[in-house]
Amino acid sequence: MRIPFEKLKAEFKRVLITLNFPDNKADLCAQIFAENSRDGVYTHGLNRFPTFVKYIKQGVIKPDSAPTLVNAIGALEQWDGNLGAGIVNALFCMNRAIELAEANGIGCVAIRNTNHWMRGGTYGWQAAEAGFIGINFTNTTANVAPWGGVTPTLGNNPLVISVPRKQGHVVLDMAVSQFSIGKLHQYQSYGEQLPVPGGYDDEGNLSTDPAAILNSKRVLPVGFWKGSGLALVLDLLASVLSQGQSTKQITDQAIESGVSQVFIAIKPQNGRQTEELIEEILNFTKSSKQVNPDKSVAYPGESTLKTRQKNTAEGVLVDEKIWAEVQEL
Amino acid sequence: MRIPFEKLKAEFKRVLITLNFPDNKADLCAQIFAENSRDGVYTHGLNRFPTFVKYIKQGVIKPDSAPTLVNAIGALEQWDGNLGAGIVNALFCMNRAIELAEANGIGCVAIRNTNHWMRGGTYGWQAAEAGFIGINFTNTTANVAPWGGVTPTLGNNPLVISVPRKQGHVVLDMAVSQFSIGKLHQYQSYGEQLPVPGGYDDEGNLSTDPAAILNSKRVLPVGFWKGSGLALVLDLLASVLSQGQSTKQITDQAIESGVSQVFIAIKPQNGRQTEELIEEILNFTKSSKQVNPDKSVAYPGESTLKTRQKNTAEGVLVDEKIWAEVQEL
Repeated sequence: MRIPFEKLKAEFKRVLITLNFPDNKADLCAQIFAENSRDGVYTHGLNRFPTFVKYIKQGVIKPDSAPTLVNAIGALEQWDGNLGAGIVNALFCMNRAIELAEANGIGCVAIRNTNHWMRGGTYGWQAAEAGFIGINFTNTTANVAPWGGVTPTLGNNPLVISVPRKQGHVVLDMAVSQFSIGKLHQYQSYGEQLPVPGGYDDEGNLSTDPAAILNSKRVLPVGFWKGSGLALVLDLLASVLSQGQSTKQITDQAIESGVSQVFIAIKPQNGRQTEELIEEILNFTKSSKQVNPDKSVAYPGESTLKTRQKNTAEGVLVDEKIWAEVQEL
Repeated sequence: MRIPFEKLKAEFKRVLITLNFPDNKADLCAQIFAENSRDGVYTHGLNRFPTFVKYIKQGVIKPDSAPTLVNAIGALEQWDGNLGAGIVNALFCMNRAIELAEANGIGCVAIRNTNHWMRGGTYGWQAAEAGFIGINFTNTTANVAPWGGVTPTLGNNPLVISVPRKQGHVVLDMAVSQFSIGKLHQYQSYGEQLPVPGGYDDEGNLSTDPAAILNSKRVLPVGFWKGSGLALVLDLLASVLSQGQSTKQITDQAIESGVSQVFIAIKPQNGRQTEELIEEILNFTKSSKQVNPDKSVAYPGESTLKTRQKNTAEGVLVDEKIWAEVQEL
């Protein structure tokens, strides 16, 4: 089923207004939830909206909170998110990082006590739209075992790196786990095997069976020991720079809330030379002999743009059941 | 065979002086080559020294070059490495990033026309020793195929992230490929299989056989499509920020030279709160139930410190043949 973007957004906004969101914050959140679905990240668009509403009702997310400045030293700032909506706080922080980068070439904003930002890529697109390189990451509750360990003590800590480009921004949006829990459930429900190993079974063997991995709870970090190390240092950076909660402290809570995030913006030199450099890099990458002659090599963000165009033209694809559920909220 | 650190360093310095390195630059390079072996990164210590000498003799590395400032905007600077020794240039850049971070909270230095920095972790340790968070990465010649491609059009673009810590810095030093070509050769020479898949065989199947992977030249990026995307954006950032050569242009040359690098330093809030936060994160990570009861979960940099202590106390482990070769230089 497909719904026009504006209808989807209006429905989100209607619900948020009933939950005492100020109009501008309701509008921002509704816009981003709708954009996430429009861009094909359904798990963090419509599909996540009911959980977002539940957290608001439970008081985990505070509709009228705004970030407050804790500390500033030149191009580096610390903010407190005061448990406001993660989307509102994250948009604010990337915007502030861009302002700092406009003045200083580079800017870094760390925020504590914020909430799930939904799709991390949102803030990469935001930086790129403004003409800046963006780097942002968040910590999460523990859901990945470290290398050499069986039980999860690391978050999957999504990392986003974006580069502005006229013909379509390059936006890498990667969690440190090879597959999200949501993706594993999706493969399982379709009765499909994973295309590559995504975790371990109960016997500790690498597996492509989503059911076996969901059962063992041992999802694989990207690159084994490398992703394990990357998840750890991202948590260290987010917690240390924001003086906020770490994955350990977030995990100690019943609900994932009060997370720590970092937003960096860097001002690239604009001009034809930069544009040509970027095209040359993308074209060279794409020149690799294709594994499948029908499937060209894509850059991060390329397929997002295609999905966006299709969902904008034909309406945003929605899960009918969840769409009905949201209309009842 | 083990050689005292100072003897190893003195030998490197002797050779570099004969190659017309100024004393201070010969000393710096000798120190870092010796440190790399001392820290167990033999591939980028003694074992790489003969290649370094060859490149100097070929004029690829210029002994008396120093970086020159190209552009500065606040806390973001561009430098030209003028094809000087990669070690000297990289130490200079991280030091400059630290100075910028001292003044602005965060500092970013991009350098073009530089050479191989040997062990990327060197500059992560440098930032951490100075009490700063460090982030640095480099592009390289193409040696990894992108996701969906067969021929290498991406570099393995090492990424380093470090966090200062009294009891031992946390230093993640990861190339984007799961195993380096050097490591594959090492496993092959020992007649061993890789512990996890490291690439594809000629039929396109994931393989743990180093010979099969060396034959197909299809090494695996960490996390398949994720590492592929990460390698691409790191090349974009290094090339765009330095306005320097990309992996494509480096690959077009016969020899890997004139690479582009980025160095970021961030000033963390010091004090007991930060120290406790870091310990809490490391302890939680280590609390994961161990796969092997005899092998504890380690943080990035932990094993380096153990190797350093052993090699400092007992002498640095060297390959006798290469050591003899260097003494003949």
